[in-house]
Amino acid sequence: MRSYRKELLFNVPSRRAFINITGQVEECLRESGIREGLVLVNAMHITASVFINDDESGLHRDFEVWLERLAPHEPVSSYRHNVGEDNADAHLKRQVMGREVVVAVTGGKLDFGPWERIFYGEFDGRRRKRVLVKIIGE
Amino acid sequence: MRSYRKELLFNVPSRRAFINITGQVEECLRESGIREGLVLVNAMHITASVFINDDESGLHRDFEVWLERLAPHEPVSSYRHNVGEDNADAHLKRQVMGREVVVAVTGGKLDFGPWERIFYGEFDGRRRKRVLVKIIGE
Amino acid sequence: MRSYRKELLFNVPSRRAFINITGQVEECLRESGIREGLVLVNAMHITASVFINDDESGLHRDFEVWLERLAPHEPVSSYRHNVGEDNADAHLKRQVMGREVVVAVTGGKLDFGPWERIFYGEFDGRRRKRVLVKIIGE
Repeated sequence: MRSYRKELLFNVPSRRAFINITGQVEECLRESGIREGLVLVNAMHITASVFINDDESGLHRDFEVWLERLAPHEPVSSYRHNVGEDNADAHLKRQVMGREVVVAVTGGKLDFGPWERIFYGEFDGRRRKRVLVKIIGE
Repeated sequence: MRSYRKELLFNVPSRRAFINITGQVEECLRESGIREGLVLVNAMHITASVFINDDESGLHRDFEVWLERLAPHEPVSSYRHNVGEDNADAHLKRQVMGREVVVAVTGGKLDFGPWERIFYGEFDGRRRKRVLVKIIGE
Repeated sequence: MRSYRKELLFNVPSRRAFINITGQVEECLRESGIREGLVLVNAMHITASVFINDDESGLHRDFEVWLERLAPHEPVSSYRHNVGEDNADAHLKRQVMGREVVVAVTGGKLDFGPWERIFYGEFDGRRRKRVLVKIIGE
């Protein structure tokens, strides 16, 4: 069994953003040389997500509006976590979108359906954050 | 390390449905001959889910009503994604229910608690769609 | 490839609770002797979750209030699943928080960001329940 590890770095200038990281994960897979196995891609921070969905800007706007309805940022004081912080909503939004994805590796490629793309979801940006790519297989 | 891959095919006649696929995943595991490892089961489409919960029709009706309340299909025009499409709600519902499950394989069996069953969740059916089963181990 | 399996046992005296199980998973990892691979940690019951977030009591109170708003326990009779049961909301809450986490193992440690901690989320306690820890690697 072989394994590979890499951290991807982000410093999003806005509070929230969705960033397509599929190409970066494919580059990791090429570097690893692994042809059969599993890739784990996870946010290393608890106010961010890694998820798989469509690379379509209208949908990303729909996600933003929907998450703000399910777990609004304001009023900041409505959350007990927000003592000297204002990011409680980011912890909640991340639960809806998920921490991680696990993707099959087949024949040296991400084994994807036609529209699957991997995204980093930032819910409390304006600081340096990391995503972990771990690949095991052979 | 050994690996196994299979696609399960679906063509659900309705827009939404929950289908118990536990037996199909068990059949894959038998075919693989793998006795210790992990099974990844994921939707290959971004308007569908794979999840683990109870095989109980009342609960499935509760899921349907609840998801429609969290991410309503109508009004279709309220979503920016719905330009020539009407499935934005399906992309959102799939995030709540999840894309994938990872299940332990122990002694050649799915290592499950008493009521765990694997479901395919369709949120935009009436077309051909796929689920990927990838098993690694030995 | 090596594999390791252990069940963690819980009997939460209240209906709902969040319990930090990071130390127990680290103990499993030490016992396994595995240095590179993946850990799967999953609830074996369908009214409970395993998730990764912050070990902060204010945030846990925010999760409790938020989940009760998204999937209220009362009125119990509003759920079709609740025929002789009262835990339909627990099945829904578990979908929001997730069944499982997959964590990278690097150099014999859980490969975590600074604030990542693993929690057992109980939504229908007052009975004996289990969490599965499965580790594969070498």
